[in-house]
Amino acid sequence: MIWRVYLSGEIHSSWREEIILSAKEANLPIVFHSPIIDHQKSDAAGDVLGVENNSFWRDHKSSKINAIRTNSRIEMCDLVIICFSDKYKQWNAAFDAGYCAARNKPYITLHNESIIHPLKEVDAQAMAWTKTTAQIIEILIYITSEG
Amino acid sequence: MIWRVYLSGEIHSSWREEIILSAKEANLPIVFHSPIIDHQKSDAAGDVLGVENNSFWRDHKSSKINAIRTNSRIEMCDLVIICFSDKYKQWNAAFDAGYCAARNKPYITLHNESIIHPLKEVDAQAMAWTKTTAQIIEILIYITSEG
Amino acid sequence: MIWRVYLSGEIHSSWREEIILSAKEANLPIVFHSPIIDHQKSDAAGDVLGVENNSFWRDHKSSKINAIRTNSRIEMCDLVIICFSDKYKQWNAAFDAGYCAARNKPYITLHNESIIHPLKEVDAQAMAWTKTTAQIIEILIYITSEG
Amino acid sequence: MIWRVYLSGEIHSSWREEIILSAKEANLPIVFHSPIIDHQKSDAAGDVLGVENNSFWRDHKSSKINAIRTNSRIEMCDLVIICFSDKYKQWNAAFDAGYCAARNKPYITLHNESIIHPLKEVDAQAMAWTKTTAQIIEILIYITSEG
Amino acid sequence: MIWRVYLSGEIHSSWREEIILSAKEANLPIVFHSPIIDHQKSDAAGDVLGVENNSFWRDHKSSKINAIRTNSRIEMCDLVIICFSDKYKQWNAAFDAGYCAARNKPYITLHNESIIHPLKEVDAQAMAWTKTTAQIIEILIYITSEG
Amino acid sequence: MIWRVYLSGEIHSSWREEIILSAKEANLPIVFHSPIIDHQKSDAAGDVLGVENNSFWRDHKSSKINAIRTNSRIEMCDLVIICFSDKYKQWNAAFDAGYCAARNKPYITLHNESIIHPLKEVDAQAMAWTKTTAQIIEILIYITSEG
Amino acid sequence: MIWRVYLSGEIHSSWREEIILSAKEANLPIVFHSPIIDHQKSDAAGDVLGVENNSFWRDHKSSKINAIRTNSRIEMCDLVIICFSDKYKQWNAAFDAGYCAARNKPYITLHNESIIHPLKEVDAQAMAWTKTTAQIIEILIYITSEG
Amino acid sequence: MIWRVYLSGEIHSSWREEIILSAKEANLPIVFHSPIIDHQKSDAAGDVLGVENNSFWRDHKSSKINAIRTNSRIEMCDLVIICFSDKYKQWNAAFDAGYCAARNKPYITLHNESIIHPLKEVDAQAMAWTKTTAQIIEILIYITSEG
Repeated sequence: MIWRVYLSGEIHSSWREEIILSAKEANLPIVFHSPIIDHQKSDAAGDVLGVENNSFWRDHKSSKINAIRTNSRIEMCDLVIICFSDKYKQWNAAFDAGYCAARNKPYITLHNESIIHPLKEVDAQAMAWTKTTAQIIEILIYITSEG
Repeated sequence: MIWRVYLSGEIHSSWREEIILSAKEANLPIVFHSPIIDHQKSDAAGDVLGVENNSFWRDHKSSKINAIRTNSRIEMCDLVIICFSDKYKQWNAAFDAGYCAARNKPYITLHNESIIHPLKEVDAQAMAWTKTTAQIIEILIYITSEG
Repeated sequence: MIWRVYLSGEIHSSWREEIILSAKEANLPIVFHSPIIDHQKSDAAGDVLGVENNSFWRDHKSSKINAIRTNSRIEMCDLVIICFSDKYKQWNAAFDAGYCAARNKPYITLHNESIIHPLKEVDAQAMAWTKTTAQIIEILIYITSEG
Repeated sequence: MIWRVYLSGEIHSSWREEIILSAKEANLPIVFHSPIIDHQKSDAAGDVLGVENNSFWRDHKSSKINAIRTNSRIEMCDLVIICFSDKYKQWNAAFDAGYCAARNKPYITLHNESIIHPLKEVDAQAMAWTKTTAQIIEILIYITSEG
Repeated sequence: MIWRVYLSGEIHSSWREEIILSAKEANLPIVFHSPIIDHQKSDAAGDVLGVENNSFWRDHKSSKINAIRTNSRIEMCDLVIICFSDKYKQWNAAFDAGYCAARNKPYITLHNESIIHPLKEVDAQAMAWTKTTAQIIEILIYITSEG
Repeated sequence: MIWRVYLSGEIHSSWREEIILSAKEANLPIVFHSPIIDHQKSDAAGDVLGVENNSFWRDHKSSKINAIRTNSRIEMCDLVIICFSDKYKQWNAAFDAGYCAARNKPYITLHNESIIHPLKEVDAQAMAWTKTTAQIIEILIYITSEG
Repeated sequence: MIWRVYLSGEIHSSWREEIILSAKEANLPIVFHSPIIDHQKSDAAGDVLGVENNSFWRDHKSSKINAIRTNSRIEMCDLVIICFSDKYKQWNAAFDAGYCAARNKPYITLHNESIIHPLKEVDAQAMAWTKTTAQIIEILIYITSEG
Repeated sequence: MIWRVYLSGEIHSSWREEIILSAKEANLPIVFHSPIIDHQKSDAAGDVLGVENNSFWRDHKSSKINAIRTNSRIEMCDLVIICFSDKYKQWNAAFDAGYCAARNKPYITLHNESIIHPLKEVDAQAMAWTKTTAQIIEILIYITSEG
């Protein structure tokens, strides 16, 4: 069985690369999917639809183009991993968590101890809270093992 | 027809009271529901289940008790209004928005211009973005009017 | 048992008033719901959210406010009646029909013979095609009668 | 990941061929599906079931045969692109849009500026409004790219 | 708690009246719903839509009008009772059973021993097989009693 | 695209073989599934679970084993074809039709003119009524053709 | 808002009465529902359908009659409370918990510390684990309070 | 067609190995999935997330990690087989059964006669009750055979 795992959230550190590399080294039967993590490219996703002077509408158009990718991938994945940093607002990451909760899609959070309290509702419906990518890898090894 | 409206999000200003009062003055056929907005009471919702030394588990228990209220009310409401301030993390508010989006439950956001960009994914699936409670009231008057 | 019936579509003739009046005269146990049929008011539904120079965004905002009403009412109704004229585009009426079909919500169309061919996909998933409001009333009398 | 894209709507211009050809040239990992676009063949889809003197029933039978194809393909696709011309009624295209909206199936519209107003409800629930097939291709390149 | 019970199937004997009368005498908190059981009236349900020379289309139109009633009532009932006689085809009754099974709507069958074998698939997904209306009443008394 | 088609209903004539053979000759991209059509084997499907003196329970056990096959296959198929003869009760075939209707699974009926009236509710929610396997093949050719 | 709470599980102690009485004294806006807790009456629920020599079939018939009650009530309740004792098998209580989990119906468990380990999967998807009815009452007071 | 079968429940005997081996010998087109059946490894599934002094939380974390595996596999399987022993509590097995029932996922139980009565609710919604793995194999041969 091939697992599909979606890596949502924080885009300013190398957590995705670490997980993908370690999973590869461990030969895990996992295909990973991610949002577009090039920040500028993501913000400009809707620019092809025409210039907007109003930044709200520029953001609106780009977010919807990105949503085509995000929703399709979340729906088809078996597990979602959502990373939060203590530096950014990352409301989109919390949004993805709520979306997963409502769809019965299991998700795991990745964040350090300093933001336990503001993330309590997000963690309450997660299948696990992790602090390191090493923990994520251990879990992926476990859940993808047979019997 | 009686409408049910859930007021999610920011708990440090009087936006809920303003909406409820204005709706009452306008005789709108709306029943409002809210989370427990007494911060300390909400954080302590799970304390009855036993003392926890680890703050993660204290938060975990309280969040789940609160989730019984939140999910029931979101499911039964016709519309959710979600308020974001520029001061707090409010990941629970973004979580509620994602939950609504996944359930086809219409929601309206309430926040000022300074946080348009970080809220772009949340706004992209909202039915409207408002900046003032006066705008909310206008919309409630409109949608509750008959033909 | 009280039935809820939603009257979707054409807004330039008196078909809604005819149905509502006849149903009242026949004492049918039906509550009717309608979109906002004042064309200007409907087009301006989103103006409270701020002026838009671009007509696309003005329409966008108003349509979403109207969608809060439409979707809520379609979901809660037992039957939807959708009227098409041969004069207008009425893509919103066909949109409502597709929405109903996907949700297993029964709908009846009301239109004259001249537009049978372009409405064939809409009629194919309808429970009935009617040409007059008198036929609608006969059907409402029948379905609301007990055993 | 292979994407499936359904091309719904207008059948009198070459927009489908343009998209399919460009996607092929760009080596996009997309399988396209379309309705039967030979107008006469589509109208005659139900003739094998027996001759009808009444044009309503002839249309009825053909529409239902076509609906087997349409619904199956919309359900299995990741994205639907719906093209409207300003010359035709195309209520079936708006019907497909309503069907997609009710199923949470993302769709993009393709039409020129002259019909923004009558399409406002259809566009309000679309993920994007495009005016050219070149814009469509840009979006397809973006959403099918990995991370 | 008021229960809603739908009485589907055979229309040539007095089983519905027996159940309704006994339930009334026992003061059971049940509202009963039934199809139109006047055979001629039911067959003519669609005649208001225009005369059909082809009996298939006459039946088609009447069946769809009746389906508006049937589906609405099955959806809103807590329990469906489906009666089969050994004299008639009653494919509509078996159709209702299949519909209930797919919707997780509990149903009870009522038929005598002579047709156990042809009804085996229908009975396999029923909550009970009864032979008399007296048994039905016993069950209704039991399930409507509190704790 | 490979289509999956389930062949439900009548087991005393060669309609399945005709369809499968013709589809093969026409090279249609279809995989067919069927119930166990060996009548005795099907009736004995549950005998491995232990002898029953009471014929009701023997039928009950076999029907449930068969239901594992039937429901799995109906769920995974794109189209169901249901054949009725005028000689048998075939309540299981009507049950499958009701199941399909409730799941939005398109189905086509196959039966001769003599049983139009008793099958009117079954036909009312079918996508087509056919009288011959040749008609079925024509439809399969049509729906499996690309654009 | 009136809440509906279903009390599932253990039937040999007075936990239900304690909760119902305390809720009444506290004037909580709650309607409680319970299974039939008279053990003999519950085991005999299907006897009206005819005598069975085989105890498996007697149990089978009674369980299905009880399932009509259980499933209807679980579906309509806002919260389920499930009590486990350390003395009995109570597989039906764990079955109800799994049913709730799959339906997104929030449930709270009530059991003492000695059975934490065997109940770990049941507790993992519960909204809270309680040890006393006093804790239950505190939670009910909290969740039924408005804002 | 390849079937997917999930083997839930009792972990102290060799029933899984017997089924898998026999299925292999009979060349059945079945892929089997199981929970982690190494008891200690399963109990420790969450230890990577950090040490817990409180056994409740240790169990909680491990159960949730295991639930990622269990729920994914149950959702993707065509059939679940659930084994109960008369020696253990196995509330997780009954929980899986309730989960299956609520999701319309067919399941078969495997247990001896001594526990018929406490398992009556679990068996009532099962597709079959078996006593030996030989019976399971017979059923698997039957359901995986074509027409």
